[in-house]
Amino acid sequence: ANKYKIAVIPGDGIGKEVIEAALAVLDALASAGGSFVLDYEHFDWSSERFKTTGSYMPDSFLDVLQPKDAIFFGAVGDPTVPDHISLWSLLLPIRQRFQQYANVRPIRVLKGIKSPLADCKPGDLDWVIVRENSEGEYAGQGGRTHQELAIFSRHAIRRIFRFAFEVAEKRPRKLLTFVTKSNAQRSGMVLWDEVAYEVAKEYPHVTMDKMLVDAMTTRMVLRPESLDTIVATNLHADILSDLAAALAGSIGIAPTSNLDPTRRAPSMFEPVHGSAPDISGKGIANPIAAFWTAAEMLDWLGEKADAKLLMEAIESVCGRGILTKDLGGSANTAEVTDAVCTAI
Amino acid sequence: ANKYKIAVIPGDGIGKEVIEAALAVLDALASAGGSFVLDYEHFDWSSERFKTTGSYMPDSFLDVLQPKDAIFFGAVGDPTVPDHISLWSLLLPIRQRFQQYANVRPIRVLKGIKSPLADCKPGDLDWVIVRENSEGEYAGQGGRTHQELAIFSRHAIRRIFRFAFEVAEKRPRKLLTFVTKSNAQRSGMVLWDEVAYEVAKEYPHVTMDKMLVDAMTTRMVLRPESLDTIVATNLHADILSDLAAALAGSIGIAPTSNLDPTRRAPSMFEPVHGSAPDISGKGIANPIAAFWTAAEMLDWLGEKADAKLLMEAIESVCGRGILTKDLGGSANTAEVTDAVCTAI
Ligand SMILES: CC(C)[C@H](C(=O)O)[C@@H](O)C(=O)O
Ligand SMILES: CC(C)[C@H](C(=O)O)[C@@H](O)C(=O)O
Repeated sequence: ANKYKIAVIPGDGIGKEVIEAALAVLDALASAGGSFVLDYEHFDWSSERFKTTGSYMPDSFLDVLQPKDAIFFGAVGDPTVPDHISLWSLLLPIRQRFQQYANVRPIRVLKGIKSPLADCKPGDLDWVIVRENSEGEYAGQGGRTHQELAIFSRHAIRRIFRFAFEVAEKRPRKLLTFVTKSNAQRSGMVLWDEVAYEVAKEYPHVTMDKMLVDAMTTRMVLRPESLDTIVATNLHADILSDLAAALAGSIGIAPTSNLDPTRRAPSMFEPVHGSAPDISGKGIANPIAAFWTAAEMLDWLGEKADAKLLMEAIESVCGRGILTKDLGGSANTAEVTDAVCTAI
Repeated sequence: ANKYKIAVIPGDGIGKEVIEAALAVLDALASAGGSFVLDYEHFDWSSERFKTTGSYMPDSFLDVLQPKDAIFFGAVGDPTVPDHISLWSLLLPIRQRFQQYANVRPIRVLKGIKSPLADCKPGDLDWVIVRENSEGEYAGQGGRTHQELAIFSRHAIRRIFRFAFEVAEKRPRKLLTFVTKSNAQRSGMVLWDEVAYEVAKEYPHVTMDKMLVDAMTTRMVLRPESLDTIVATNLHADILSDLAAALAGSIGIAPTSNLDPTRRAPSMFEPVHGSAPDISGKGIANPIAAFWTAAEMLDWLGEKADAKLLMEAIESVCGRGILTKDLGGSANTAEVTDAVCTAI
């Protein structure tokens, strides 16, 4: 079996619950003949740690994480710490310092789950959103300047477009939609357009089309079947990916991979949902996003067969109506987890 | 009858068609005992003008428009001119130079129109989106700096919050949701939060809640009935208002008012949709957005009874299924227009 070193950072709130559930599912998968062994190191980096020690993680976090093959992350956010502090002390520095520049968010309507869209037929909504994860509106200069500086560099735009084209090329429809607001935001966004058409020449087999971010929401709602792979800036994709998850039924199912495609640094895998303080501690959080995230991690590590098996187990459980409340069901976290373990 | 001086700028594409239709409807309203007379001056400011004379509008546009009581605007955008040039040569300078700082976008599911959301009952989706219209991400420094500078000033944030609270206060539910991304965008957005809570103290009868822009899309899709008045930055509201229009059935129905609440400058009224080159010239554009826009203009001018009558006429026509293609019907622009004139 192939052995991988995984840093596990459950973080705050339901992050802890869903990561625990996902580890159980990964164990079941490994025992059921999986071709991998995961060697975990657990980290207590969290708001709790911050409140007792004064920091979310040690200054040496890059050195500590660098030897790992992947980082499995839960959520960060605590009612007693301002979000712009908690996030910039844990999640965002890892994304940025490791140059995990490709944030990949696959989303589709899973078997057994109902889209809130009346006319959405099975297969209509099946997208991969590729989010620029290293700069743009999250450039992250701090302070109280009363202005936000969004930095767009040709280098970063080019690499995210190349990555997005590679994703699109492997999908059956070979369609890439790039999102921009170049009609109103004149500087960075016009560069974004320019690089798009430049990189497109390297991928003649992929069809590319351009959408303004506002009109994109309309297309997602009214013509989901017209979209496939999507690439957008940090902020635009943040917004569109939450919308996508909602249209697929719930934010409680959506996974994220923060990839360093050069594989120089470990990549980080996290559910899109946050720490959800309102439901944390109740054992009712939807673990599907964490399971799907685990499948994405296995896929990235090269364990494609097991990743696929895990997705099938998830869909078979959803298909039998074993769903948490956010999806209209009445199962709790443990029931969904047990059902997925059994299905495996 | 009260007389108002109106600048009419049909602009490009379907802008010309829907403004013509709206003028017919306004005429019908005036003849049918309306208490107003509109004194139009027509301007050919458009991409066509740009292509023959080299400019969208004369340099004296502020002086020319200043004496008007309102500006009735169609759309700008032409396939042969880059959008960031056309928009910054006509629409955006008028918004910004006249300090029309409150962009108001009411949206609801009109009688006879179906929301794409399966569970959306009549009355569930009934929102007013208030968009900061003078700064933020549209601050508009030009050039090729490869960065976007979003400027947020305490003064501008305070006035848009005051305006939004005034709107919320007049609505039955007295609920204001403010949208931010203060967890990731640290500077301007944290100021936005700060001012929100400061201004809220002046409006104790309004309930205020805060949403992150990404989570906001989810709430709009999954719990539309939980929202009422919404206030957001220039870019966030741009995205959310297109989503709102889609959830209410079509971008073809949504109106915008660009208001100078001090009434020092004329305010500008425009449909949210653009020039739509793909359907322009075919006589099939949905004129409802322009009609609803006309109603908003009358309301702003003080002609509230006639504004209400116009909305009733629109809804009675929609209720009878006389709809354009974007709404699932087969009527053309003229048929919808005639039906609304007759209903009046
Ligand atoms: C055309 C464009 C500049 C404009 C905007 O972004 O403000 C439009 O999308 C709108 O919503 O009015
Ligand atoms: C928590 C927040 C900073 C984060 C982001 O905006 O990137 C989240 O919304 C996400 O989508 O991963």
